[in-house]
Amino acid sequence: MSDESKSTNITWHDHEVNREDREKQNGHKSCVLWYTGLSGYGKSTLAQAVSTALFEMGCRTYVLDGDNIRHGLNKNLGFSPEDRTENIRRIGEVAKLFADAGIITSTAFISPYRADRDQARALLPESFIEVYVKADLAVCEERDPKGLYKKARAGEIPEFTGISAPYEEPLNAEIVVDTGKAPLEACVQTVIDALKERGILS
Amino acid sequence: MSDESKSTNITWHDHEVNREDREKQNGHKSCVLWYTGLSGYGKSTLAQAVSTALFEMGCRTYVLDGDNIRHGLNKNLGFSPEDRTENIRRIGEVAKLFADAGIITSTAFISPYRADRDQARALLPESFIEVYVKADLAVCEERDPKGLYKKARAGEIPEFTGISAPYEEPLNAEIVVDTGKAPLEACVQTVIDALKERGILS
Repeated sequence: MSDESKSTNITWHDHEVNREDREKQNGHKSCVLWYTGLSGYGKSTLAQAVSTALFEMGCRTYVLDGDNIRHGLNKNLGFSPEDRTENIRRIGEVAKLFADAGIITSTAFISPYRADRDQARALLPESFIEVYVKADLAVCEERDPKGLYKKARAGEIPEFTGISAPYEEPLNAEIVVDTGKAPLEACVQTVIDALKERGILS
Repeated sequence: MSDESKSTNITWHDHEVNREDREKQNGHKSCVLWYTGLSGYGKSTLAQAVSTALFEMGCRTYVLDGDNIRHGLNKNLGFSPEDRTENIRRIGEVAKLFADAGIITSTAFISPYRADRDQARALLPESFIEVYVKADLAVCEERDPKGLYKKARAGEIPEFTGISAPYEEPLNAEIVVDTGKAPLEACVQTVIDALKERGILS
């Protein structure tokens, strides 16, 4: 049987608020900014900084990242290839819901597999903006805020992306930034300019 | 290893937008309106009508229901007790994210098990408003928009809530409405009055 409880014979309401209505209310279009790249290179930091800048411009924004996903929705997933794929699948579906709610939605996850990112893209092809946070591995290892690269090099963390597990670079990301070469303000501006060019912001 | 990519040594931004900031921007508080009740009694219709009324008042709202969840985030779940529990768990976690994003969030699912609803409540105890759409089974069977009750009575649908599977009534729902006795407008008003009383709307 189905939990799907939407009645068709009850005609009490004649209009459900849709994405277009919400975009009009918000004064901007919605989209998914899908940040991808190696660990420790500032994906989440950049996503939060863009989100804050947009918020200060009066936009509705939200960031999905490890902080609010891994301990909640995806706490029953591990780090096997299958679980990583399911992790990204769920994030893509949630991002789609947020975009439908009219929100400029950001996701900040390594998301190393091209196929997984493309599956997320396929959910919202018109509104999906891949942001490749292009990392210099040497800079990642030097920053290494949590000592993860050091542990990975010592073999203490198996399947660490960039060291002992693959990262499949985006082939056609809509936006490419290198947080090791450009200051944060410039990276934020790059993303916001792209949103303007695409008509997300007017 | 961890997909959790939030750096701690990069101090580019000093403020992440939080729920309180968003609530201030929106001019109302956020919450989760958790509609529960038997199939075909208008949970989703009521949730959509409340959402539309709130939207017209200038609020930010969103409805999670079978339409946008069962074919997306939860399409890999069936209807076994375990899958029903995981279904509701994920919906609770997504509702929490939406509430964190400042949105008056509604969920419209049968959600027959008290323990599952209580688990969702525990995620946001201060902001969880259970709306029991109290059904008259006879009215459900008479309406039966999809012929589901008829099929369930004929034994063609196993484990149909209210017929051959249990529905555990809420013991302390914050709001109780009976769409078989009160017109939709009155039910909508009941919910909106409750939001005012709780300070969600000012």
